[in-house]
Amino acid sequence: MTGPNITPELLRQFFTPKSVALVGVSDRNEMARQVQRNTRLHDFAGTLHYVNPTTPEVLGERTVPSLSAIDRPVDLAFVFLGGDRVLDLVEEAAATGIRNVVILSGGFHEAGAEGRERQRRLVELAARHDQLVLGPNTIGFIRPDIGACFYGSRTVERVASGPVGVASQSGVILTIGANSLRTRVPGFSVLAGVANESVIAIDHMIDYFVDDEDTRVICLFLETVRSPERFKAAALRALNAGKPIVALSGGRTAPGARTAVGHTGAMVGDYKLHRAALDELGVISVRTLEELQSTVSILANHAPARGRRTAFASVSGGLCELFADHAVEAGLELPELAPTTTARLREILPSFASVGNPLDYTGVGRSDITLLPRVVEVLAEDPNVDLVAYSDLPASMIAAHEGLLEECREVAVVAARAPVPVLPVANEYADSGPGERALVTDFAKPVEIGGIDNGTKAIANVVWWSAQRAAPRPPTGVEHHPRPVRDTAEVPGAWSEHEVLSLLRRNGVPVVPYRLCTTADDAVDAAAELGGGDPVAVKVCSAEIAHKSAVGGVVLGVSEPADVRAAFAAVVTAARERAGVEPQGALVAPMRPPALELICSVTRDPTWGLMLIVGFGGVWAETLGDVAVATLPAGPDRIRRLLLGLRMAAMFDGGHGLLAANIDAVVKAIDGVAGAALELGDELGSLEVNPLRVAGDVVEALDGLVEWSA
Amino acid sequence: MTGPNITPELLRQFFTPKSVALVGVSDRNEMARQVQRNTRLHDFAGTLHYVNPTTPEVLGERTVPSLSAIDRPVDLAFVFLGGDRVLDLVEEAAATGIRNVVILSGGFHEAGAEGRERQRRLVELAARHDQLVLGPNTIGFIRPDIGACFYGSRTVERVASGPVGVASQSGVILTIGANSLRTRVPGFSVLAGVANESVIAIDHMIDYFVDDEDTRVICLFLETVRSPERFKAAALRALNAGKPIVALSGGRTAPGARTAVGHTGAMVGDYKLHRAALDELGVISVRTLEELQSTVSILANHAPARGRRTAFASVSGGLCELFADHAVEAGLELPELAPTTTARLREILPSFASVGNPLDYTGVGRSDITLLPRVVEVLAEDPNVDLVAYSDLPASMIAAHEGLLEECREVAVVAARAPVPVLPVANEYADSGPGERALVTDFAKPVEIGGIDNGTKAIANVVWWSAQRAAPRPPTGVEHHPRPVRDTAEVPGAWSEHEVLSLLRRNGVPVVPYRLCTTADDAVDAAAELGGGDPVAVKVCSAEIAHKSAVGGVVLGVSEPADVRAAFAAVVTAARERAGVEPQGALVAPMRPPALELICSVTRDPTWGLMLIVGFGGVWAETLGDVAVATLPAGPDRIRRLLLGLRMAAMFDGGHGLLAANIDAVVKAIDGVAGAALELGDELGSLEVNPLRVAGDVVEALDGLVEWSA
Repeated sequence: MTGPNITPELLRQFFTPKSVALVGVSDRNEMARQVQRNTRLHDFAGTLHYVNPTTPEVLGERTVPSLSAIDRPVDLAFVFLGGDRVLDLVEEAAATGIRNVVILSGGFHEAGAEGRERQRRLVELAARHDQLVLGPNTIGFIRPDIGACFYGSRTVERVASGPVGVASQSGVILTIGANSLRTRVPGFSVLAGVANESVIAIDHMIDYFVDDEDTRVICLFLETVRSPERFKAAALRALNAGKPIVALSGGRTAPGARTAVGHTGAMVGDYKLHRAALDELGVISVRTLEELQSTVSILANHAPARGRRTAFASVSGGLCELFADHAVEAGLELPELAPTTTARLREILPSFASVGNPLDYTGVGRSDITLLPRVVEVLAEDPNVDLVAYSDLPASMIAAHEGLLEECREVAVVAARAPVPVLPVANEYADSGPGERALVTDFAKPVEIGGIDNGTKAIANVVWWSAQRAAPRPPTGVEHHPRPVRDTAEVPGAWSEHEVLSLLRRNGVPVVPYRLCTTADDAVDAAAELGGGDPVAVKVCSAEIAHKSAVGGVVLGVSEPADVRAAFAAVVTAARERAGVEPQGALVAPMRPPALELICSVTRDPTWGLMLIVGFGGVWAETLGDVAVATLPAGPDRIRRLLLGLRMAAMFDGGHGLLAANIDAVVKAIDGVAGAALELGDELGSLEVNPLRVAGDVVEALDGLVEWSA
Repeated sequence: MTGPNITPELLRQFFTPKSVALVGVSDRNEMARQVQRNTRLHDFAGTLHYVNPTTPEVLGERTVPSLSAIDRPVDLAFVFLGGDRVLDLVEEAAATGIRNVVILSGGFHEAGAEGRERQRRLVELAARHDQLVLGPNTIGFIRPDIGACFYGSRTVERVASGPVGVASQSGVILTIGANSLRTRVPGFSVLAGVANESVIAIDHMIDYFVDDEDTRVICLFLETVRSPERFKAAALRALNAGKPIVALSGGRTAPGARTAVGHTGAMVGDYKLHRAALDELGVISVRTLEELQSTVSILANHAPARGRRTAFASVSGGLCELFADHAVEAGLELPELAPTTTARLREILPSFASVGNPLDYTGVGRSDITLLPRVVEVLAEDPNVDLVAYSDLPASMIAAHEGLLEECREVAVVAARAPVPVLPVANEYADSGPGERALVTDFAKPVEIGGIDNGTKAIANVVWWSAQRAAPRPPTGVEHHPRPVRDTAEVPGAWSEHEVLSLLRRNGVPVVPYRLCTTADDAVDAAAELGGGDPVAVKVCSAEIAHKSAVGGVVLGVSEPADVRAAFAAVVTAARERAGVEPQGALVAPMRPPALELICSVTRDPTWGLMLIVGFGGVWAETLGDVAVATLPAGPDRIRRLLLGLRMAAMFDGGHGLLAANIDAVVKAIDGVAGAALELGDELGSLEVNPLRVAGDVVEALDGLVEWSA
């Protein structure tokens, strides 16, 4: 399907309407009433046309009967009609030259098979006529700088113009975000509900915000990523442009909302895969609406800190303790202050003060209001400190007290010239409201970050983003892996362990020595050769049996010829009688003594495609989820970072009866597994090596399993 | 030291003053100004005496020169003097018959050696004169029902009387708590800053609140627990009385704030020990100020739910997703609805609605305001549901809209007769303010729970508390362990492994067979006897060497006599040359094949005394902190619950090359370790068994270490 290339320039035209037709308005339609109210509240200077064929007046305005009855060009049709009438309207809009349509109507992709078919036809129609569509099922959009508040829900007050761009797949959450953020950021460039994303999608909005000079911070609510490749490209453009994206994703725990293929994938969970994909793109993932607000607030109001070393000052020891707890848990550091800083603070503070970080500058700070600004100044000049935070008082309290107003003024002066960001942290998350804004406007007070818990998380988010921005990042789609020649036999279908291990070996993954034996004599011979008298494992080999142990298809620790012979017979019989299949034979392999065991799995995420999961093996991984995740292609450097980032990475250092692992060899083996998975192509569901045994320099895949996408 | 038995009745008199002397007031003293303002704002009906020997008038009031110059009995002296003048004042108060003193002055326990000495003398003085003291370094107290707002900080508005009792060791956090809670609960019985706890401590306040008929919920900010035995007794009284305690503890991560003794104790961290102790007492621990507020709010405003099965309804699919994510993460369940419920909902909801839990009752709920009350009613009657939550709108939005007001009224009616609690959950945590209170007062609206994240955590906290209340709990101080006869040789001092293992064995802990050998011949003989030809371990035995491997004092896997002989020589030489000590000899013990390894450690927490820590052994425990903690005595049932509550408890079921563990045998061994530790008495620092090897039915301590308190 063709259609317009949805460029930022086309979107700019979309969001700059001068003449708008409201189609399907009626006095009973609450959303139409809100759009009328909102455009008036925001002094929209353009023209509104009320389209209704049956009533001469709606919402106190004269109507026109149809789009074609409007005698001037119309930039945008804003549609309230019932879902079943929308397609005709879009045709009519095209016929009258209207290229931009916002569809509030439901009854499309969200509404069963019939709705999905209707949306498919809408997309076709729009493509044929080169139309841009926002929605269906959208709440609309707001572009405050021109008063274009085409928004079907009540805005609490006039939305201000400013640096934050918002795009959301949920209309309600867009409204919540707008209402709550409004007191925390200077204002918004555009807020848009992309909803069903029939034409304009969240990635187009990111691209728009990247190109839009007014936007500095991008805020998203994601329920699903429908076009991961476009999303990736847009997110990396934003990162390279220095415009942070903050995303709240719904459906973290929703059972069955999305399902990664394969056992390890299901174990790790969809959200962890999703989160890992966003992390790689430098997108800040937040867990709560509150964390979203606080993070966006810092990004919109403060320069980003150069690192995580945080100094904190408060008049209360209790608050110092709380801040330290939350800061450490959020991943910030509270560094020791430099000796010069300590000396300067001793000169300023009362003799009984205990000088440290966090800094309790004592209750004297309540009466001597020069103390806080002087303390902040000294802390900000400490070479060990990347940012200074301090306990902020409620605006109502500051405003009611001349001394506190003076303190506020002085801190603002100090903050403005400080070499690092100075962040007032309110004790609790709360809607700071007009009082706080007045202080910001009148005294240049640094904008407060709401709540110690959210505040420290938000600061840590911004610090993380700064580091992401600085980190080198390969352009998307670059491939690190030499492609092995694909064996024509390697086609979807059930694969035996022998076939999987062969594939791995060809891709440079060291595999435990084994032999596929078809007779008991053959097995005895293999045991003698591979075991050399030591015990071996005998495992049934069949493409139809994924879980060999479960059917009695594995016998461990046999060495005597008679025992090997019996084991071969046992596993073959088990396959026949308990799984009802005729096996290829049995694999004979030496037993390996206990060693470090890893899981290495490549699994297909429905959104992000093949993802690599590495972690410690066995019950540990299943119970604890200490795994690291990356999209593919990953490459050796990223694989190394994944391994060393595991919580239990200390295991690689040896001790506790284990040899120190040769990390280079582990990385090479995992890179081989990733390469093998990529080679298997679009039909691969998952490729799992479990365990990947690591005994010092010896790295070996002991078992492998392939599953194909349904 | 004797002194008054601080009974709730004496505290009631303390908090019911009719005649109060303000000592050390001046026009420059901001706290005195606040106390004057606060008592006036709260219409305190008693008499205030302004005591100042040098000025005839202070804060617009006539002064008296001294306490003795007051011609009427004084119930309470409220002291603003400098710390160095407080002791004389307390003497003077005693001489004039004043039994109750509040000391705002600093310069006591918080202020170095001199301050600590001053506080010691204050405590003595108060004991001698049977005086109750709140403080020093306190902000004061508020008892709203009689307007006794003796509080040195500004209250935002008049504090209302109600069911919440608050005690805090931090004055600032008491103020924050009072200001934020004020919009979320009906009011307070007493708020008290116990600060330095010279006489009145947090446990006395708990006892007071338990006996006080006006108090239903107890809210604490803890920096330290100074009298753990009294605290335990008071907390269990509260639990048995059905009065929940909600506690926010400072210093979770503060390095070195408190330090448990022993390696495992240090590894686990003080907060985990503290938290475990509070858990056992049924005290709700919260992480943030916001979680504190939301939890107290539910307890003060709603009946507790009977379980964790939660139904949720919203007009927004996005909010349903968010709520489900947070609810599951908080430990709530979102059960399947009963078929009858589903059928009833299908009758109510539009045909395109998808009926489930969480329930998106669709945007039709915006125009049809009867939908929410009907949905809530049906959900509340579902037998699978313990509580119903729904998306609450901001009060400002409800108040501005007649339809929403009507909806609010109807939901209130439904909630009032519902068989389970009905909780409106605001999307974001925010200060709901007077608008919300007006709806609660005028329409009996159920009080909202602020924020999806905090709200779900708070609901889960309350559900947890209800279960704690129902759980049987032994009275404190009961001892489960038969006391073994104490060997007179078992006195503090460095202990060798041999001594530790002997102690364990006498306490019923199975120990690996071993022999303490003093000569190489002896070792060869022991190896033959214990190893029977299989390899043995040879470990140096010395009280001075805690970490044998580190000095080369362990040789593993020797079986030939010559090798055993060499090993004996090697470890003895290592002790002499690398540790500089003459060892007792060497232990010879059989090698054990790999099996499940546990750590079992008893460590002394500076506050809570001996605590039992159990977890999986080796690097897993160190890296992951998958350990469970209990105060001692614990008893077999609690030990079993600890083990089965470990994240990796699935390990006990066997598989992955391990035998299924005999849990009874594990419990018995751990109970023996606990008994041995209790037997060692007050000087024990830690007793650590690492590893406790578990191979099916065979449970054995392989090594043991004792450390004594410094």
